[in-house]
Amino acid sequence: MAADEFAIIRDLFAPLAKDDAARGLIDDVAVMQARGALVVSTDAIVEGVHFLPGDPLDTVARKALRVNVSDLAAKGAKPIAAVLNLIWPDARPSDDIAVFARGLGEDLQHYGIALLGGDTARTPGPLTVSMTVLGEPYGERTPSRADAQLGDQVWVTGVVGEAFLGLMLLTEQPAILGAAPGDRVDDTARRAMNRYRVPEPPATFAPVIANHARASMDVSDGLIADAEKLAGASGVGIRIDADAVPLSSGGEAYVAREGKAGLLRLLNGGDDYQALFTAGPEARSAIQQAGRVLGVNVALIGDVEAGGGVRVIGADGRELSGAAGGHRHQLGQ
Amino acid sequence: MAADEFAIIRDLFAPLAKDDAARGLIDDVAVMQARGALVVSTDAIVEGVHFLPGDPLDTVARKALRVNVSDLAAKGAKPIAAVLNLIWPDARPSDDIAVFARGLGEDLQHYGIALLGGDTARTPGPLTVSMTVLGEPYGERTPSRADAQLGDQVWVTGVVGEAFLGLMLLTEQPAILGAAPGDRVDDTARRAMNRYRVPEPPATFAPVIANHARASMDVSDGLIADAEKLAGASGVGIRIDADAVPLSSGGEAYVAREGKAGLLRLLNGGDDYQALFTAGPEARSAIQQAGRVLGVNVALIGDVEAGGGVRVIGADGRELSGAAGGHRHQLGQ
Repeated sequence: MAADEFAIIRDLFAPLAKDDAARGLIDDVAVMQARGALVVSTDAIVEGVHFLPGDPLDTVARKALRVNVSDLAAKGAKPIAAVLNLIWPDARPSDDIAVFARGLGEDLQHYGIALLGGDTARTPGPLTVSMTVLGEPYGERTPSRADAQLGDQVWVTGVVGEAFLGLMLLTEQPAILGAAPGDRVDDTARRAMNRYRVPEPPATFAPVIANHARASMDVSDGLIADAEKLAGASGVGIRIDADAVPLSSGGEAYVAREGKAGLLRLLNGGDDYQALFTAGPEARSAIQQAGRVLGVNVALIGDVEAGGGVRVIGADGRELSGAAGGHRHQLGQ
Repeated sequence: MAADEFAIIRDLFAPLAKDDAARGLIDDVAVMQARGALVVSTDAIVEGVHFLPGDPLDTVARKALRVNVSDLAAKGAKPIAAVLNLIWPDARPSDDIAVFARGLGEDLQHYGIALLGGDTARTPGPLTVSMTVLGEPYGERTPSRADAQLGDQVWVTGVVGEAFLGLMLLTEQPAILGAAPGDRVDDTARRAMNRYRVPEPPATFAPVIANHARASMDVSDGLIADAEKLAGASGVGIRIDADAVPLSSGGEAYVAREGKAGLLRLLNGGDDYQALFTAGPEARSAIQQAGRVLGVNVALIGDVEAGGGVRVIGADGRELSGAAGGHRHQLGQ
């Protein structure tokens, strides 16, 4: 990395690092004051795997931050500080780092997160962004994915499958969508594409999760796949009512056209970045009321049951076949 | 990433994550108890940039951890916990992750660092390892690179340029070395190659730095380049006595053969991962004694002076020309 690029990076990111702990980004480490429990999330996103090569760089920055915000929200924690490893391709102009920094700066401000520091390296490969986000728990305990109990109800925030629809639109797989490429750039389609690029994790709902969730994790690899992980870690089974899973209007239209196979695609699609959690039935009305007060969509989608694995039950009371699987952040599959 | 690879990773890394905070690596976050100040370092290493494609994977893991241990040691901090983002190439067999995990496990144990968690992603590009290491300061303050004062003396730990010699040997640039490839696989050469692959940051010396250093940073981009950063951040100049810079026996032989130009190559070579710090003259004997007691080589190499930039002064009292520059982790340059 040439000397002038060091200056670019310092100039771009220093204004984002207003916290004393960041030392104006001129130092090699950050020094923060921690108060008790610290919740740590780390995630990397890779061009061509977790985002598309053509995605605007401000959205890439937002996604890198938000996949970690998603982890913390699902654990009932408030994100407070982030460190960045930006692995920049030789083939991309350094000037484009400004676009990345702008998106990151806006999102750091949006979530109230201090950028503590980071590192920038060159790569002959794809753009890769690794972020570590530190948070503080809102409650006494931080729910694990292994804490589900028999009799718990199963909840999910937001909508499921919208980001997957957006990915399909962006990668022009018209056979799956029943439309020609470019056919559907209406508001619904635009929203879906935006959702793929910029997740909307339920950050404001994190205190509710801290107060009421037994087990909790974020949905990033597909609702069914992640429910399987939660069930497996907790040693229980999970039954999901297919009709109760909240879809976007685009998702509803897609399922109306594609039927059960389409629904299963949405339930197996990745990049939702919503919270999947269980809670005792006594918490039901409090969770629903919190959703109304906070304007967060939160849906009761099933129950914890004996056994193992995940069963997805259709409106006819029968299990949807082929429910297993899940998106593994491999584009084009 | 296929489901069986998830299992591989969990099985390999879970034994390294013995701390309660890691939650056995089955959860999406770690929850640690922090006590006051926390020093945060993050660094990524990229195949073909920071390490060679043929480097053994256990050494790649060690280097990824140690470049962060180096940052913390230079800041007078004790590393306590690490999170890992492992970006694994599609083209490398998953089985090789076991070799990486073995090296990481041994080093975590060596330094007493708890692996708190991490993420694994696939990439079509080069192997990339991003680590964030959290540490606790040994002293009241954590020296910044901006804290040097006029009248301070300038110190460096370990030896300078040995890793650079190792890189030259590994990449077979015989013209620079004055030897044919494969010519010099004696102990000196082997030690230099090992040093390039596995840095030896002065972790045991960190308490001494905490107690006595004014400004401090690690040397990773070359002694001269990093001294320039320290001088620039502190608003001072730095004079380095070329003869006082500690070299390995291989380095001494190289300079005997190549003269001033060779010395400058060593002072501009990267990957030293030693500490460069300043301290008041009153600390001199305490620093020297600590080095003897701890078995750490620590050398007084110059002074902080008025002005700016770095001057390297030869035995004849004249400034070595062409001292500016520095290695930027670009192999083959």
